[in-house]
Amino acid sequence: MTPEEKITNFVFKSLHNVTQNGLSIILLGTINSEPALVIIKHLPFPLSPTQLTSLTKTFTSPSLIGQNDIYTWLTAVHLGPVKLDIIHPATAKHISKYASQQYRSVLETPSIYTTHTLPRITRLRSNGSVTWVHNILSGAAEQDSILFRNEDFILAPDLHFDGRSREGFHLLAIATREDIASLRDLKVGNLEYLKNLERDIRTAARDLAREKYGWRDVEDEDLLVYVHYFPTYFHFHVHVTFVGGEVGAAQAVGKAWDLRSVVVLLEGRKEAGGRGLEEVELRVTVGVESEFWKEVFGPLREGREPEGV
Amino acid sequence: MTPEEKITNFVFKSLHNVTQNGLSIILLGTINSEPALVIIKHLPFPLSPTQLTSLTKTFTSPSLIGQNDIYTWLTAVHLGPVKLDIIHPATAKHISKYASQQYRSVLETPSIYTTHTLPRITRLRSNGSVTWVHNILSGAAEQDSILFRNEDFILAPDLHFDGRSREGFHLLAIATREDIASLRDLKVGNLEYLKNLERDIRTAARDLAREKYGWRDVEDEDLLVYVHYFPTYFHFHVHVTFVGGEVGAAQAVGKAWDLRSVVVLLEGRKEAGGRGLEEVELRVTVGVESEFWKEVFGPLREGREPEGV
Repeated sequence: MTPEEKITNFVFKSLHNVTQNGLSIILLGTINSEPALVIIKHLPFPLSPTQLTSLTKTFTSPSLIGQNDIYTWLTAVHLGPVKLDIIHPATAKHISKYASQQYRSVLETPSIYTTHTLPRITRLRSNGSVTWVHNILSGAAEQDSILFRNEDFILAPDLHFDGRSREGFHLLAIATREDIASLRDLKVGNLEYLKNLERDIRTAARDLAREKYGWRDVEDEDLLVYVHYFPTYFHFHVHVTFVGGEVGAAQAVGKAWDLRSVVVLLEGRKEAGGRGLEEVELRVTVGVESEFWKEVFGPLREGREPEGV
Repeated sequence: MTPEEKITNFVFKSLHNVTQNGLSIILLGTINSEPALVIIKHLPFPLSPTQLTSLTKTFTSPSLIGQNDIYTWLTAVHLGPVKLDIIHPATAKHISKYASQQYRSVLETPSIYTTHTLPRITRLRSNGSVTWVHNILSGAAEQDSILFRNEDFILAPDLHFDGRSREGFHLLAIATREDIASLRDLKVGNLEYLKNLERDIRTAARDLAREKYGWRDVEDEDLLVYVHYFPTYFHFHVHVTFVGGEVGAAQAVGKAWDLRSVVVLLEGRKEAGGRGLEEVELRVTVGVESEFWKEVFGPLREGREPEGV
């Protein structure tokens, strides 16, 4: 079977997931009686003037939705390209990874953090989940992806950045220090460190945008600099994207914290005579498939005490 | 000319804007020598099992991008529906409204807020920009759109919510009190008010999701409850969407503030012996076409003092 024949041999079983408001769908089915996932996405419209000149001539079967004064709404049929990602044979793990996930917005109090979340973070860290970060920092792995390095952090492209699309610009600043697992570990004593970190990350990312990627007009203010809570891995790292670029769940409140807001929260703790961000309530978006929902917030919601780590 | 003929008579002049990462484009051109805008969007894929069973059979010209183990990537041609919005004849105002806008991430210090932003907010409020809100609250307008009312707020559907799509669920809670223009006006004395507001908005929105819209399984934790800074209008209001629903610029850090984060910031001010949120630094996303960029942050960036209101 050629790769192209995979799609013609696909037998549909069920709609597995819908993303991008229906502009991308994931189908579960079989190819040769083996499980297969097909991810179907619309591709961007062409943007060259030549193609755009003829684009509106390619629409057929215009059908009126409505008209009001100078506004007209139509649907039409368009012959356009789609992208197909096929995973075959797909394992149960693939099938679960691409399934839709429910999210919950939970309140993590200081007491829930200390009693239930922190021991799980500690367990995850001791189980080797951040070894790959240490390997990058120590020079043992992925050295060619490091774009910038100073005493406090390295800058590398995020996995999802293709290096070309300005909208999708996404760098990661990984802290060289290993004692901060998440924003919860930030203490009032880290205030100067954090302010310098924001300034230096902005400068380095701006210079890379200008010099490596060729966007000469980029200024410090064009950058959004934020951290995740919960992060995907528990070693302090900071995301850098363009303001007004692609916005997804990774930039949304409940998941993302502007680094300056973190500073402001911490300044509040300092003025209040407190220690750090383990003392504040945080509203956090948690996937119901994550261990934090399954082991902590799910049981708490049902009035049960979470079990030991 | 029939409405359908508007699209066949469209003459392309320039690419005016690209949104949704290229899945929607806006063309500027002419129809009958008059200015016209055409907004072209991909439509969601069909979701019924019958249509999905045949969907993968409709792709033609499969072309291999790559293959690695169980992963195969292809493009193919697909005959699909698009939506066309036509504005014709378009005025200069329409053309400017649909143009792309640059955004900047600026730091609004307490001093910038008090000296430059606040007088502009006051001017906007005194120029009748929130009269329409007062009309709703007083019962003089749009009473049929009010879904819930208590002493502290009314709940109404957001303009962009079609009442059907769970992903696009979006309600607005408009405060009945008129003394809070934005989150900057929140004082430590408002802490109990805000906590009750969050609780009551969550309960009322959950009940509406269940009873009016028919999503019986919705819980309080399924809701994201946030405010904007800068907001579109300066009368205190709170957004409610689903966690894990559609994420756009309106939910992104720099624009959106989870209501509980606002409470936490305010608690920090209280413990520090402060007055309220006019005292903190905020990182804010500002469109360069907005008056706040043009009159305040733009001049400050160039080292000029903003001129009087």
